[in-house]
Amino acid sequence: MPTYTPPLRDMQFLMHEVFKITDDYQQMKSYAEVDADTINAVLEEAGKFAANVTFPLNISGDDEGCTLDKTTREVTTPKGFKDAYRQFIEGGWPALSCDPDYGGQGLPFVVNSALYEMLNSANQAWTMYPGLSHGAYEALHAYGTDEQKKTYLPKLTSGEWTGTMCLTEPHCGTDLGLLRTKAEPQADGTYKITGNKIFISAGEHDFTENILHLVLARLPDAPVGSKGISLFVVPKFHVNADGSIGERNPIFCGALEHKMGIHGNATAQINIDGAIGTLVGEPNKGLQAMFVMMNAARLGVGNQSLGLTEVAYQNALSYAKDRLQMRSLSGIKAKDKPADPIIVHPDVRRMLLTAKAYAEGGGRSSPTARS
Amino acid sequence: MPTYTPPLRDMQFLMHEVFKITDDYQQMKSYAEVDADTINAVLEEAGKFAANVTFPLNISGDDEGCTLDKTTREVTTPKGFKDAYRQFIEGGWPALSCDPDYGGQGLPFVVNSALYEMLNSANQAWTMYPGLSHGAYEALHAYGTDEQKKTYLPKLTSGEWTGTMCLTEPHCGTDLGLLRTKAEPQADGTYKITGNKIFISAGEHDFTENILHLVLARLPDAPVGSKGISLFVVPKFHVNADGSIGERNPIFCGALEHKMGIHGNATAQINIDGAIGTLVGEPNKGLQAMFVMMNAARLGVGNQSLGLTEVAYQNALSYAKDRLQMRSLSGIKAKDKPADPIIVHPDVRRMLLTAKAYAEGGGRSSPTARS
Repeated sequence: MPTYTPPLRDMQFLMHEVFKITDDYQQMKSYAEVDADTINAVLEEAGKFAANVTFPLNISGDDEGCTLDKTTREVTTPKGFKDAYRQFIEGGWPALSCDPDYGGQGLPFVVNSALYEMLNSANQAWTMYPGLSHGAYEALHAYGTDEQKKTYLPKLTSGEWTGTMCLTEPHCGTDLGLLRTKAEPQADGTYKITGNKIFISAGEHDFTENILHLVLARLPDAPVGSKGISLFVVPKFHVNADGSIGERNPIFCGALEHKMGIHGNATAQINIDGAIGTLVGEPNKGLQAMFVMMNAARLGVGNQSLGLTEVAYQNALSYAKDRLQMRSLSGIKAKDKPADPIIVHPDVRRMLLTAKAYAEGGGRSSPTARS
Repeated sequence: MPTYTPPLRDMQFLMHEVFKITDDYQQMKSYAEVDADTINAVLEEAGKFAANVTFPLNISGDDEGCTLDKTTREVTTPKGFKDAYRQFIEGGWPALSCDPDYGGQGLPFVVNSALYEMLNSANQAWTMYPGLSHGAYEALHAYGTDEQKKTYLPKLTSGEWTGTMCLTEPHCGTDLGLLRTKAEPQADGTYKITGNKIFISAGEHDFTENILHLVLARLPDAPVGSKGISLFVVPKFHVNADGSIGERNPIFCGALEHKMGIHGNATAQINIDGAIGTLVGEPNKGLQAMFVMMNAARLGVGNQSLGLTEVAYQNALSYAKDRLQMRSLSGIKAKDKPADPIIVHPDVRRMLLTAKAYAEGGGRSSPTARS
């Protein structure tokens, strides 16, 4: 049986006893009111959500995966995924470290990181749906117009809508300067966008009524290379002036890609067939704005590794205590059993200690990097 | 597009120019007639079989995998797998380094190793079906009775039947002394065998009319631990006195297990419900006999790694020459293209050279280890 116990004591030890983070927060106007009890209460509830709600969904995630209906071009996520997300937004988790001006709870980002470490341990595939949204939130918060902020940030904060990061095209990954997706200015100040993107994590799903795609594209006559890239926000559904959902924007999932170990996450090929979007930041300076989201994604990938390391270690430890093979070199340890648990063997202990060192060492570095 | 070119020149260079293997063979009675031209002709045909027949089957292997019919308890292999095996036995490949007394071609084992290196490069999942048979052949050749050899070795040599290695049980892998499968002596000198085995590669399939399971089990009152293990050969179908196929023996595939990357191979749970088998080697000395097969399997696993390293390197090299990203540090190399192929980047070259060194170094060590 797979097992996951949120490492609350480790987190609290690092936050309060090693780094004494609330001492620092008292010097910061935004966080002066944040005390250890608040942080600990949030971590405890976050751990319960991860262990009880998303951890059991790995089975449907792996077995069923996501399915694309080629006619409607809608994606169905594995059993239980959508309901877990409903609970996630009901619990207010997307808002944890968002700006109170847009409905956020204004807690330090390190608390959000701890939440995501536990979510990643519990179910990486599920976690990548809300995980991308925070980066979209940050990019729009930093570079969006007042209108864009007013329209989109409350929805990302509440989790009612999610965000995606549309960079990669079939012929360009590392070298974004080669990208071909086109954005043509329209008379009303919007842009008509056409192109193909691949490897778009959480690019389509059934969790929310709308999805905000952050899309890199080129304006007509843009300079060649990375100096000619602009950023656009392209909603799956247009948003009416009163905030209600409008018409479908032609930005569709063309296929689902197969990523090892995360069948439950919809890694989408996205076809953009003249979808209407609005410019984020300045023309031709889209990479600068997108880097806000890319940096959030980078921290997120580090957090995935940390979360997976922790849960892998916990399960290896549990197995090593349970599995009986051979006898200890220093004499029989489990006299009532036909063999000793493998944790007695020196090389097994070495491997467990290595995994534990990575898990705890990775956890230790994260608050300093992020707080 | 995946690509595979058999590394014939590398193999010939190692065999003939570095190790001069035919000089050694001239000192050996069995191989005195084996010359370089014969070896080279065999390698060339083996390479064609691997590249043209089994390599294209990775697609059906990955997409379809194997399916178990829970009613008949028969396994269907992916599209094309069975027909490729028919061609394999028609070409006489299973007999390559088998004993001429049982229909073999009597070529040195290093030639068989080269064949299997190419088969493993081309399609590991497919190759594991015939791959296990050679170990079963060797164990029966070394420890079988005259009757067992007469009945089984010609069928393993021709490839008409395949062999399996049934060691692991749910509670015992490394520590075979814990195994519980029971063998009860019958009045006619045979044994009735009952137990459960897991992770049995090629444990069931639709390639051949019969499968020979080599099964470790315990006799009644056998000493505890690894000194009380005996080896039995348990055919899927009994063999009549005239060599024809008889009744079904109750040794069934209970489920297929999921091994990453080899969906096309049937990794079987094997339920043995009072199947009749015969003893191989002496009572309670079964591990000694099974180690002949285990050693063949160990060499086979090394050969899998070598084959996969070679094909991975070839495909990485092909991609690195084709994929355009960024410009070379030392100036533009592909003036007519929007970016340079990634093989110009120092870190890509370092990775390619590392892979090449492993592939060539692994190949270099294999003839000495095996000839």
